[in-house]
Amino acid sequence: MKSKLIRLASLPEGMPREANFNIDFEELPAMKTGEVLLKTLYISVDPYLRAKMAGGHKPPLITGDVMYSRAVAEVIDSARPDFKPGDKVLGFLEWRDYLLYDGEGLTLINNNRLPLSSYLGILGSTGLSAYFALTDIGQPKPGETLVVSGAAGAVGSIAGQIGKLMGCRVIGIAGSNEKVEWMRSKLGFDGGINYKTSPDIGTALANLCPDGTDVYFDNVGGIISDAVISTMNDYGRVVVCGSIASYNDTAPETGVRLLPLVVYKKLLIRGFLIADYKACFNEGIHQLQQWLTAGRLHYAETIMDGFDKLPEAFIGLFEGKNEGKMIVRL
Amino acid sequence: MKSKLIRLASLPEGMPREANFNIDFEELPAMKTGEVLLKTLYISVDPYLRAKMAGGHKPPLITGDVMYSRAVAEVIDSARPDFKPGDKVLGFLEWRDYLLYDGEGLTLINNNRLPLSSYLGILGSTGLSAYFALTDIGQPKPGETLVVSGAAGAVGSIAGQIGKLMGCRVIGIAGSNEKVEWMRSKLGFDGGINYKTSPDIGTALANLCPDGTDVYFDNVGGIISDAVISTMNDYGRVVVCGSIASYNDTAPETGVRLLPLVVYKKLLIRGFLIADYKACFNEGIHQLQQWLTAGRLHYAETIMDGFDKLPEAFIGLFEGKNEGKMIVRL
Repeated sequence: MKSKLIRLASLPEGMPREANFNIDFEELPAMKTGEVLLKTLYISVDPYLRAKMAGGHKPPLITGDVMYSRAVAEVIDSARPDFKPGDKVLGFLEWRDYLLYDGEGLTLINNNRLPLSSYLGILGSTGLSAYFALTDIGQPKPGETLVVSGAAGAVGSIAGQIGKLMGCRVIGIAGSNEKVEWMRSKLGFDGGINYKTSPDIGTALANLCPDGTDVYFDNVGGIISDAVISTMNDYGRVVVCGSIASYNDTAPETGVRLLPLVVYKKLLIRGFLIADYKACFNEGIHQLQQWLTAGRLHYAETIMDGFDKLPEAFIGLFEGKNEGKMIVRL
Repeated sequence: MKSKLIRLASLPEGMPREANFNIDFEELPAMKTGEVLLKTLYISVDPYLRAKMAGGHKPPLITGDVMYSRAVAEVIDSARPDFKPGDKVLGFLEWRDYLLYDGEGLTLINNNRLPLSSYLGILGSTGLSAYFALTDIGQPKPGETLVVSGAAGAVGSIAGQIGKLMGCRVIGIAGSNEKVEWMRSKLGFDGGINYKTSPDIGTALANLCPDGTDVYFDNVGGIISDAVISTMNDYGRVVVCGSIASYNDTAPETGVRLLPLVVYKKLLIRGFLIADYKACFNEGIHQLQQWLTAGRLHYAETIMDGFDKLPEAFIGLFEGKNEGKMIVRL
């Protein structure tokens, strides 16, 4: 049986391009005891994969590696007692249409009420990142002001809604008027800023956050973060969940120095890694499911169809082509 | 009775100069009930006072204000039951040789075994800042590497020694070979860097910290901090206790962006304010006294004589003229 796969053909310099990837084929060997044969259904593309190509996120992705990320697959054949044909499973899988897998870290999806793609988004590391990063590092209190960058993205759109559920005033920053309108009308944010058409983000923030910013949920870094952090109140918390503005940098970028602000305002700035919260995943999933069932949490997906679209979908993350979670359906 | 005092004559632009201060005289009114008449003995000069002049440290110092800071004084006359002539007291006092004071926040010094000046340093906010900032934010563990900037300064020299007491490898960064030698031979640091003669602090750090940096105790900010933070290990902690390199800036300075490092390395960066630890001061003083009595903690003072030397002593902080705590003795 043939397996179609995507490799990293070369390390991107700056913005990733389609030429950095190539499609290849391999003949799969016979299935061994302990393995399952999987047919991939949905593959998640995420900004952190770019950081892996820069070596900033470990382990790094190097030239020649088969790309991998979270995916949902169907068991086609099984030489394991814990999985049977027809089972839907979630795992960190190589970008392949069919693959043999040893089952390590594979989770059985046994809830039929939610669409399969939700396990890559709202109930996957996207929703869990938003939940744990905001509650554990950000510690928002009712009446405080939360600013979210990349607010129409997968994690940001959930983080902002959780901020609303916790009683905060929530302002989102995103890259189009449509996204800003979506955050306000669908997600219930109190306001939004289109950074592409706001010449002075600082002034826009000052207008929308008259009491300053208490929690900043940062997915982007760069000049947007410079502007937000300068509006922080004393004892403000900066949750650094991503830094997409810097992932394509070819050399360390410079910006406004943060340390004087950190000491003047007694700020907390902390980097977040979802893997550190593994022990609490069930608690997080339970809370997210509760909000979903009660209709208090909305999530968006941008789904592109076709295995070959994976590079385009991934590159699209850096062009702001997604509203919510970007997923490729095979 | 006449009171000699020092006012802020103008806000410094950049580095403070003697011309930013002026000496004045006032006739003191008659002492009222609830007041004490104090003769000042020792006055502390500290970098944070410069931040007050820039408005970064609240409340700000503005033109015309009488300067104030921590000081030790003797009670000359008292209209309060809790203080009697001859008592030595500690408080936040205006820069005056004699003054009337309502007693608010005044602490009686009732330990004769330690020199009076130690209450402005090792047993005052200097020692307490080093202790609480390092232990609460830095959370050093035995075997970890601690790097201290401004390491020959009042707070830094204590923080480094506490790091040694807690089992860390300690590297200090300071501005002269004499200071580096003092940190190694007297304070027991494992190594030191003279940043003025090290063209590449990053390489110097790499040599002295072969296992990377786990805790960075930062008093200075600027390019020194850029270099140290780039050597941090995953889950490293940056204790921002001061940012003296930036206090004299006239406009926000730029430097290497930190947020990508924060997310790649899951760093914690947190600003420290000693006032937040008031409830634990007794615990801290007890621990510091224990180490002092056991001869396990050494402290240095640079004492300048004469009330009129206050501006010169203060300016000297930014020229690295002090080893340990800078104090003016009247």
